[in-house]
Amino acid sequence: MKTVGIVVEYNPLHNGHVLHYEKSKEVTGADAVVAVMSGPFLQRGEPAIAGKRARTEMALAMGVDLCIELPVTYAVQPAEWFAHGAVAILEATGVVDCLSFGSESGTLERMLPLSRSLANESGALQSEIEKHLQEGMNFPSAYGAAAAAVFGDSDSDITHLQSMLMKPNNALGLHYLIALHRLGSRITPYTIPRESAQYHDPLPGASCIASATAIRNIILSQGLDAARPYIPEFTYSIMAREIENGQAPMEWEQFRQPLFQSLLTHTPAQLEGFLEVTEGLEYRIMRTLAKLQKPTVDALLESLKTKRYTRTKLQRMLLHIMLNHDKTSMNREELAKGPGYIRILGFSDCGRMLLKRMKQHATLPVIHKPTALDHPQLERDVRAAAVYANGHPQPDIKCYYSDYLLPPVTS
Amino acid sequence: MKTVGIVVEYNPLHNGHVLHYEKSKEVTGADAVVAVMSGPFLQRGEPAIAGKRARTEMALAMGVDLCIELPVTYAVQPAEWFAHGAVAILEATGVVDCLSFGSESGTLERMLPLSRSLANESGALQSEIEKHLQEGMNFPSAYGAAAAAVFGDSDSDITHLQSMLMKPNNALGLHYLIALHRLGSRITPYTIPRESAQYHDPLPGASCIASATAIRNIILSQGLDAARPYIPEFTYSIMAREIENGQAPMEWEQFRQPLFQSLLTHTPAQLEGFLEVTEGLEYRIMRTLAKLQKPTVDALLESLKTKRYTRTKLQRMLLHIMLNHDKTSMNREELAKGPGYIRILGFSDCGRMLLKRMKQHATLPVIHKPTALDHPQLERDVRAAAVYANGHPQPDIKCYYSDYLLPPVTS
Repeated sequence: MKTVGIVVEYNPLHNGHVLHYEKSKEVTGADAVVAVMSGPFLQRGEPAIAGKRARTEMALAMGVDLCIELPVTYAVQPAEWFAHGAVAILEATGVVDCLSFGSESGTLERMLPLSRSLANESGALQSEIEKHLQEGMNFPSAYGAAAAAVFGDSDSDITHLQSMLMKPNNALGLHYLIALHRLGSRITPYTIPRESAQYHDPLPGASCIASATAIRNIILSQGLDAARPYIPEFTYSIMAREIENGQAPMEWEQFRQPLFQSLLTHTPAQLEGFLEVTEGLEYRIMRTLAKLQKPTVDALLESLKTKRYTRTKLQRMLLHIMLNHDKTSMNREELAKGPGYIRILGFSDCGRMLLKRMKQHATLPVIHKPTALDHPQLERDVRAAAVYANGHPQPDIKCYYSDYLLPPVTS
Repeated sequence: MKTVGIVVEYNPLHNGHVLHYEKSKEVTGADAVVAVMSGPFLQRGEPAIAGKRARTEMALAMGVDLCIELPVTYAVQPAEWFAHGAVAILEATGVVDCLSFGSESGTLERMLPLSRSLANESGALQSEIEKHLQEGMNFPSAYGAAAAAVFGDSDSDITHLQSMLMKPNNALGLHYLIALHRLGSRITPYTIPRESAQYHDPLPGASCIASATAIRNIILSQGLDAARPYIPEFTYSIMAREIENGQAPMEWEQFRQPLFQSLLTHTPAQLEGFLEVTEGLEYRIMRTLAKLQKPTVDALLESLKTKRYTRTKLQRMLLHIMLNHDKTSMNREELAKGPGYIRILGFSDCGRMLLKRMKQHATLPVIHKPTALDHPQLERDVRAAAVYANGHPQPDIKCYYSDYLLPPVTS
């Protein structure tokens, strides 16, 4: 049974994801699909529009066979750690043969050799990154520029590489490839060209494919029905049920009160202890709060934003503060150890067979409920789920601890 | 100008308070009234139904001449520290001649000699308190029983004293008297008998006087109009405006989300660092959360409550967790130093004259805005006000920092 791994957020699962899923099976010839999916909080530092169980249901409805949670420890991280965590889990299952990801470039031709070098490189690249950061670049741009400068053959090649790496999915893909190299993985990578909808494009075109960002904006501003052309019918029904139950749609503003409370009750010295509160950002937070025009998360982010600090970086920082993620327990050494378990969110009949094979081949504990293991990453996942449920439009105590109360989703 | 000091919460200011105010002037023959009033959070560990500016307006409308904020460091404390902080501020003004408080007993006959002994006592009383705590008594009862046992003349006298000290206003009054002794104050104490409405009585009688608790329950369950017979017209108008502006009525449930978020994101070891999280209560919190039926503050308190831990003690504990009040910076030694400033909330024309006299006589800095001083107690006050504003039905950024933005209220 040939198995392809994918790394997903499904925020929410839309027509573009279905295309990627189908192409991934087609290109790799895989019979089964394993998805590593972020839980309630996502890579760009945002709450998912619906909870992880609902999004697992969407994945299974589409045809995913096994859905595994990417621990929040890796899910809310810059591309480098996000990719490392996700790829390490796919590798640890012992049953994944290939990895398929979407990219703007649609080919691995330049990315593969680049990733091979970057996996081993540190000195020259690091000092080049530092140089660009000091020029005021944000980290993703600095990384792209540095990688291009160190490995480009000529001026035009450097420009070409840099422009390629400015595309978010190319950059993320590069980190998947680097992670595969670093882990000495035998998983074969594939990339699928991303369709017309631009990730950064807030408005959908005439096509039935729109970016997840555009779809969320439609749902939040016009309601679920307006988003119907861009999502499969099962996404529509699951979202409709979640909204009906008061558990969606979720967005940052649902966390206004606890976020502001965290910011207001910590001293700058305490704020500095949280992950991603770097380079004096604790003082920037304090100054920004004092002159804010409106008590909304959006107003806060708009006021905090600079060329150097992207909204993504700032959103992750605010999430870490809200979730009490400190620098000490989530340091580089801890992250480099990789995920500590394979948490099953859901599976199909075929997924059940994969789970059986994993009993022999998995190199990490495979768990269905958090009671099965005592691990700091798992504690963070349970806490993140509870904080997320605490932000629901209609909070329900059953959702706070559904990690403990409910078995994985099955299709 | 003879001046009487009173210690108030005005939550909200009602007809019983007017009576106490008038009797206090009559009994003491005072021309001016200075009130030390708690800010947004109160002695029983609850948010005030309206903000401190609104309640200052009520005080001035009734005839109070000078309204001073009791720092949250003392306002949300057991009777002992609450009384110490409030009396120390009245003493520090240098212009207060007498102190008037309401009590169930209505006389100082037994309380004065008792307070004189208790002010100097420690050994016998402490071991008697410990004995009762170990029997499972809560602290206020243990204190009352211990004081009665140590100072009663006979069995019947002990029973009588103990029953007297079981009444909350007698107990609080005793601590005012102890504080006066300990501070070597020359302020003369007076007590006014409390009228028929019982503090613990949730339902108003036929009288136009109802307890503040009963009035808040009426406002929260039936609306402001239903409470009209029990409050002066100015309280009604001020409350109506605050409700209209989305800044009242405030209650614990307005803080459900940040409170639960604080509880959910801290480990037991971290919770144990907060004030009043004593004797393993951090584990009781964790166990209680896991089996809670509804995500409400009330359900949490009902589940946490035991004979030993009163709702009051638990509410204060939850407030300290939410406000990030830690044991280290708010230890006994720090509290024993007393308030660090006299923060003016509002004044009348007569109060302006008191302020002039205080320039010569006050023994603490007199401040109108928090920018005037750098003091940890003041930082806590500013934070408490911002957290309170963050819980408003309609949050408005101007309220978060009104401490900085607005001058004291004047009448």
